[in-house]
Amino acid sequence: MDAKIHLRFAQKGDMPEVLRLIQELADFEKEPDAVELSLSELENDGFSTPKRFDCLLAEMDQKVVGMALYYPRYSTWKGVTLHLEDLIVSNAYRGKGVGTALYSAFLAEAKKQNVRRVEWVVLDWNTPAIKFYESSGAKVLQDWKTVQMDQETINKYIENNSNENI
Amino acid sequence: MDAKIHLRFAQKGDMPEVLRLIQELADFEKEPDAVELSLSELENDGFSTPKRFDCLLAEMDQKVVGMALYYPRYSTWKGVTLHLEDLIVSNAYRGKGVGTALYSAFLAEAKKQNVRRVEWVVLDWNTPAIKFYESSGAKVLQDWKTVQMDQETINKYIENNSNENI
Repeated sequence: MDAKIHLRFAQKGDMPEVLRLIQELADFEKEPDAVELSLSELENDGFSTPKRFDCLLAEMDQKVVGMALYYPRYSTWKGVTLHLEDLIVSNAYRGKGVGTALYSAFLAEAKKQNVRRVEWVVLDWNTPAIKFYESSGAKVLQDWKTVQMDQETINKYIENNSNENI
Repeated sequence: MDAKIHLRFAQKGDMPEVLRLIQELADFEKEPDAVELSLSELENDGFSTPKRFDCLLAEMDQKVVGMALYYPRYSTWKGVTLHLEDLIVSNAYRGKGVGTALYSAFLAEAKKQNVRRVEWVVLDWNTPAIKFYESSGAKVLQDWKTVQMDQETINKYIENNSNENI
């Protein structure tokens, strides 16, 4: 932690660097083709109305080396919450406190916005991440599972159940 | 399924009925005190800018008997997605196709908005729900866990890590 970590909010012109980090994570997770998002979508989604996300950047040596991307969600028990979608640190800059700095800045932002809860997801075999989150006071929920349906399946479902009555 | 199910989007004036359904679910889940949300928050969050959610209502016998509440999320791989936060059917009206009608209407809305994915969470012991979702083509993710931090813990974390550098 000799080098200084500089944190700031991402601007539209940072989106190429953000997309590079997103792709780096996908490569690392051995899903290099999973990123369907284009640069122009990312620029549009983050910097026009409705704005879909906010993004904090970490810089070292004048380079973008990490990011925390988040957006509001809504709980019918708690109201507005913040969801941390991605916390990415570039491989060459791990172990230097970048992840912790971004995590702390995200939580500071949650405090500032006065939300009643923050949340995110973690892979259940990622023991170091789970330990880090738990040591910070976060709780890993054991009994909830995520369910997803992709666009192809949505379209197929609607075709087969076409009595849309709204 | 003799009686007709009528679906429509919730209006601000429906929020007392929506809060009643939210409370009914909390009671059912034996968490009667979990609903921290007030009626005025719900009215404000759903019907001013930024709008935090959309809500579909199901009516039978001129009464609100079910709801599907959802909002956009953002995936750095897929872009905008829709999250189904709550799918609630009033206890006395279960087994009449209300849940399926709301689920189908939510998916029709996802198709209309051209999102690349929809998602939600399910309790892992809720086998009938899991079977229903899977039979519709949705996938239950086995290796992701939800992590949450509540407001008290956020505040405590920030107090103890007060070198906020943004």
